[in-house]
Amino acid sequence: MNTILMNLEERSYPIYIGSDLLSEKDLLQKHVVGEQVMIVSQPPVASHYIEKIKAAFVNHHCDEVIIDDGEANKTLSTWQRILSELIKKHHHRDTTLIALGGGVTGDITGFAAACYQRGVNYIQIPTTLLAQVDASVGGKTAVNLPNGKNMVGAFYQPKAVFIDINTLNTLPEREFRAGIAEIIKAALLYDESFFCWLEENLSLLLAKDNAKLTEAIERAVQVKANIVAADEKEQTGLRALLNLGHTFAHAIETVTEYKMFLHGEAVAIGLCLAAKLSFQRGTLSEDEANRIINIITAVKLPTQIPSSTNREQLLAAIKLDKKISDGKLVFILLDGIGAAQKVTDITKQELEAIM
Amino acid sequence: MNTILMNLEERSYPIYIGSDLLSEKDLLQKHVVGEQVMIVSQPPVASHYIEKIKAAFVNHHCDEVIIDDGEANKTLSTWQRILSELIKKHHHRDTTLIALGGGVTGDITGFAAACYQRGVNYIQIPTTLLAQVDASVGGKTAVNLPNGKNMVGAFYQPKAVFIDINTLNTLPEREFRAGIAEIIKAALLYDESFFCWLEENLSLLLAKDNAKLTEAIERAVQVKANIVAADEKEQTGLRALLNLGHTFAHAIETVTEYKMFLHGEAVAIGLCLAAKLSFQRGTLSEDEANRIINIITAVKLPTQIPSSTNREQLLAAIKLDKKISDGKLVFILLDGIGAAQKVTDITKQELEAIM
Repeated sequence: MNTILMNLEERSYPIYIGSDLLSEKDLLQKHVVGEQVMIVSQPPVASHYIEKIKAAFVNHHCDEVIIDDGEANKTLSTWQRILSELIKKHHHRDTTLIALGGGVTGDITGFAAACYQRGVNYIQIPTTLLAQVDASVGGKTAVNLPNGKNMVGAFYQPKAVFIDINTLNTLPEREFRAGIAEIIKAALLYDESFFCWLEENLSLLLAKDNAKLTEAIERAVQVKANIVAADEKEQTGLRALLNLGHTFAHAIETVTEYKMFLHGEAVAIGLCLAAKLSFQRGTLSEDEANRIINIITAVKLPTQIPSSTNREQLLAAIKLDKKISDGKLVFILLDGIGAAQKVTDITKQELEAIM
Repeated sequence: MNTILMNLEERSYPIYIGSDLLSEKDLLQKHVVGEQVMIVSQPPVASHYIEKIKAAFVNHHCDEVIIDDGEANKTLSTWQRILSELIKKHHHRDTTLIALGGGVTGDITGFAAACYQRGVNYIQIPTTLLAQVDASVGGKTAVNLPNGKNMVGAFYQPKAVFIDINTLNTLPEREFRAGIAEIIKAALLYDESFFCWLEENLSLLLAKDNAKLTEAIERAVQVKANIVAADEKEQTGLRALLNLGHTFAHAIETVTEYKMFLHGEAVAIGLCLAAKLSFQRGTLSEDEANRIINIITAVKLPTQIPSSTNREQLLAAIKLDKKISDGKLVFILLDGIGAAQKVTDITKQELEAIM
């Protein structure tokens, strides 16, 4: 087992990465201070792993609530169901919520923990590769409103994150590969040697070799932990670099109504577009741009916007994303492999050229 | 104008107290960093004062949302209305919410600010005496769930608090007197000389003498600011002392369904019961207990539970309050005038004796 410390002064916490961590009863118990635990999970993850977690808390008052997975269920109504269950089961201020599932489960559970009785403890146990390397680390919690993704939420850090790579054995192959996109993103924006390592070790990684998988997750989480430690609440602009590829990804997801692509797949296309735009602006060489597109192709992830997608709608969605999040059209582009930068002067013509 | 600093490191903020502060355009503008402002207010306060606030922000993008007042409207649905309005009017992360009204408006607005885009700035402009000396200071924000008061919320500090005593001119006399109960509470639990001052200056205070009113508010706010600075998130037990009289008050409000008493009136009864219980346990002299009951009587606030109230229901409500907030039956009692203490071994017999 490897441990990365998320360094945030009194809000610091460990991120454990390894095999069969869900059987580590003492370690799980160590991060629960009170006598009450509420496990929030989703099908089919719950049926695979919830009993393991419950086994660690046989001497606690342990309740569970099963929510529906998927972006469409990341709503205030699902969030309120968790809160009502906490009240109904008389959970006190010293209760601990445990999020067992993908990014949606983690985001909603974290936001419920942030608000129940003005804040209780929670633990993240992400079971998708995407959530393991991205959503579970850094304390961004949220739900969607009908007219805005992640518009309601809190920066609220967990007490610990347990990344058990064994949970990836029950993850569909398509979701596993989509998670690789966020790993590639982490390497691209911050760590050139990690990107080279990914190129060299890709076959073993895709074959879920235990050692390679652990190392890839660890290095991606380390990138995120470094950035979050320096800019927890996205105030200096550093944390915004994690949005590499994401302005495109969100627009693609919006226009295709979240039906055509998994989030990681949309990010894969977004990374390729960011690479092309960076090359077009001269901050990335043609060779570097090709290496990026090649590795994404090798993971069998999409690299292009489908020809069926309406370009005008896509441009409108990009502008909407901007309108709500900031006063300017902001893109994160690459300044070589391993370095990202914020760019605010992209024109419509430049966007049309790469799409 | 007097200024008290709420001392919370990087979350510190000024609390301004004085006459006609709502006309201080520069001071209001100083605490708004972005170009957008959303005023949240309630009738009839909005009709009296909202134009004054808007006059300070003629060069800003200034929107407003009017919500219904009253504990029954302190709901997730009212809170969601504010959030939807923010999205609809394209408010960015650098917007500032302004709560103009009583405690309910302040609590909901603060919680909306805590969650919109994971946290935006807000300013408190309390217009009831109760909100001026209690709810607006200290960053406790919340809404009620159907089965739990203040069960969903956040500790989230405002950027400034403007206490304009002129707003008390439009406050109904009954509400003004109810607010005095929280001032008496502040003196009782922390500041003996302030309690003596209140006894000496009560007539002028009740006549809304500007100087006396300002001093009373300032001293009560100072008590709260000192306690919050030492225990912002109610972790050491110090902040819990502010609940003097409140376990009784909440039970009385619950049993009378929030219809018979204003919150401050229920607190007045709670203070008298806490005095009697403290006398019964020997930590308060008979003379001290009488002084407390006398000053509350002089304000024309209730001192006793109405004979029509069912004692068994009241005891059940007290236990429910406890059940949800903690594992034990917790009371804040007096250890002389000017000092409070947490007591956890009160028996049912003792409670029956004072009720």
